[in-house]
Amino acid sequence: MLIIDRLISDIDEKQCPIVVGLDPALELVPEFLCKQAEDAYGNTLRGASEALFLFNRHLLDSIHPVVPAVKLQMACYELYGKWGIDAFDRTVKLAKKLGLIVIDDSKRNDIGNTASFYAKGHLGKAPLFDGYDDGDKPDFLTVNPYLGDDTIKPFVTECTNFNKGLFILARTSNKSAGQYQEAVVDGIPLYQKIARDIQQLSATHLGDRGFSTIGAVVGATWPEETKKLREDMPNVFILMPGYGAQGGTADQVTAAFNTDGYGAIVNSSRGIIYAYRSADGKSQYPYEEEFTRASLLAISSMREDLLRSLKQADRLPKNW
Amino acid sequence: MLIIDRLISDIDEKQCPIVVGLDPALELVPEFLCKQAEDAYGNTLRGASEALFLFNRHLLDSIHPVVPAVKLQMACYELYGKWGIDAFDRTVKLAKKLGLIVIDDSKRNDIGNTASFYAKGHLGKAPLFDGYDDGDKPDFLTVNPYLGDDTIKPFVTECTNFNKGLFILARTSNKSAGQYQEAVVDGIPLYQKIARDIQQLSATHLGDRGFSTIGAVVGATWPEETKKLREDMPNVFILMPGYGAQGGTADQVTAAFNTDGYGAIVNSSRGIIYAYRSADGKSQYPYEEEFTRASLLAISSMREDLLRSLKQADRLPKNW
Repeated sequence: MLIIDRLISDIDEKQCPIVVGLDPALELVPEFLCKQAEDAYGNTLRGASEALFLFNRHLLDSIHPVVPAVKLQMACYELYGKWGIDAFDRTVKLAKKLGLIVIDDSKRNDIGNTASFYAKGHLGKAPLFDGYDDGDKPDFLTVNPYLGDDTIKPFVTECTNFNKGLFILARTSNKSAGQYQEAVVDGIPLYQKIARDIQQLSATHLGDRGFSTIGAVVGATWPEETKKLREDMPNVFILMPGYGAQGGTADQVTAAFNTDGYGAIVNSSRGIIYAYRSADGKSQYPYEEEFTRASLLAISSMREDLLRSLKQADRLPKNW
Repeated sequence: MLIIDRLISDIDEKQCPIVVGLDPALELVPEFLCKQAEDAYGNTLRGASEALFLFNRHLLDSIHPVVPAVKLQMACYELYGKWGIDAFDRTVKLAKKLGLIVIDDSKRNDIGNTASFYAKGHLGKAPLFDGYDDGDKPDFLTVNPYLGDDTIKPFVTECTNFNKGLFILARTSNKSAGQYQEAVVDGIPLYQKIARDIQQLSATHLGDRGFSTIGAVVGATWPEETKKLREDMPNVFILMPGYGAQGGTADQVTAAFNTDGYGAIVNSSRGIIYAYRSADGKSQYPYEEEFTRASLLAISSMREDLLRSLKQADRLPKNW
């Protein structure tokens, strides 16, 4: 089964178009996990990385039955060097073992030959002296398109070879997104041009559900742009960050879905993984050990929020 | 001394505006080093990473007296996971110990908060349970601007805090560079708009030699564009990839230099580090162990080539 079909099927099964962003920041990890990690490996990069992994493990154990996918923000791990990468790899492995689809949010790219190194490292296999390494790799990777389409191709190749998928940045969720993304090419804004190029690319990687393994990133903070892009990319699945902490609302998000209720997955990170913390930074829960209960509640409330908006927009999938 | 002033002073001292790209691909590493690494760590990610490091160590030992800087292409290391990062870190540490300036070619970026994680990881310090990690970090980082200037700021902050520098992508060296980089904004191509924004940014980080710690990447394969950008960015130092293997010639490169002969450093990777290999893939040298002699010759011939072109263009620094 093509990875995009599996993603849609898992969204359907869990009736939940939500991806949880595992973007751990050490100062927000519960104290008891920090203590455990520091006791094991000291006040070191390895200790800090262990705390991130323990945090993820608790979250994954708790959330895996209710969401179809997790997204790992690479910057959070890379900050801790090789031990951070180790925590990233262990999280990917565990998430896959628990049946979750894993999105590697690394926003990588470089020119030709180098792009293929990134593509092999994140989605494919690393060449050894003899044969290839066979470690677990994420299912999807986010990619930056600024360097042009000859730099996208090496990623597409690995998708074809290893049944992986991409989400190419079209319109990001941040405030200054428009600064360069609205430059004009062929009479339309650059982000729209890129979206149309992704649609073109999608035709050769189409799954049974009408969507391609080559997807796009569109920020939840831009509802008007989303509407336009949804029309321009009928076969492109959208990864939508920016809901919640960044200001995107459920009503703004619905434009990313087709009229049949499919076509997008909405990411939330801080709103879910740090749900246990009150505004003053202290735990809302008498026992910090139960912090993932707050995350489950946050997922449930985000899901209700999304489903209500989809229903209002007459876009709730039929069998949900 | 601001890091950009040190770079210019080192270029001056060695009379050599060349940065060597340490972009090792396992299949091109000399056999005797592969054997040594595989004997130590087996046919594993760790073994492969060790081979890359040994390759770099031999090169660094040999080239450090004649070039001011090395550039590490992160994709080559990241391909090998945590052990690849370890090889990257060990190479950075050794290069700095040998007095070289280190450019981390990772082309990173992401939205606000995440950008600051990348900035801290590559240029600053990673927060631990108590205080910060104090490991060696590269001197410069390449950054992708597509997400807009609010995503550049966190990198600038670390530059200010830790005397580091940036090279922001303006015009890349690959064939499809123009596809999106020539979209029009404010009546000019996007890459030029970005260049002008970099020039604006440079004013607050100006060194004694008239150049800023906030630099730009401009591909050696675009001489006309380079001429325009040089005029638009009088205070911006240019990192110029694309010489040699990618087709950029010394004559094309001179436009990146100011009339006084400063303002750019030209990268060559394959042409230098694999100089020992003949076209048929076999070593040109009877003793492969001496492969770095071919690299030294390649540097010397590239330097002569550049200096001749600079002289012809009346841009050779006065005291060289």
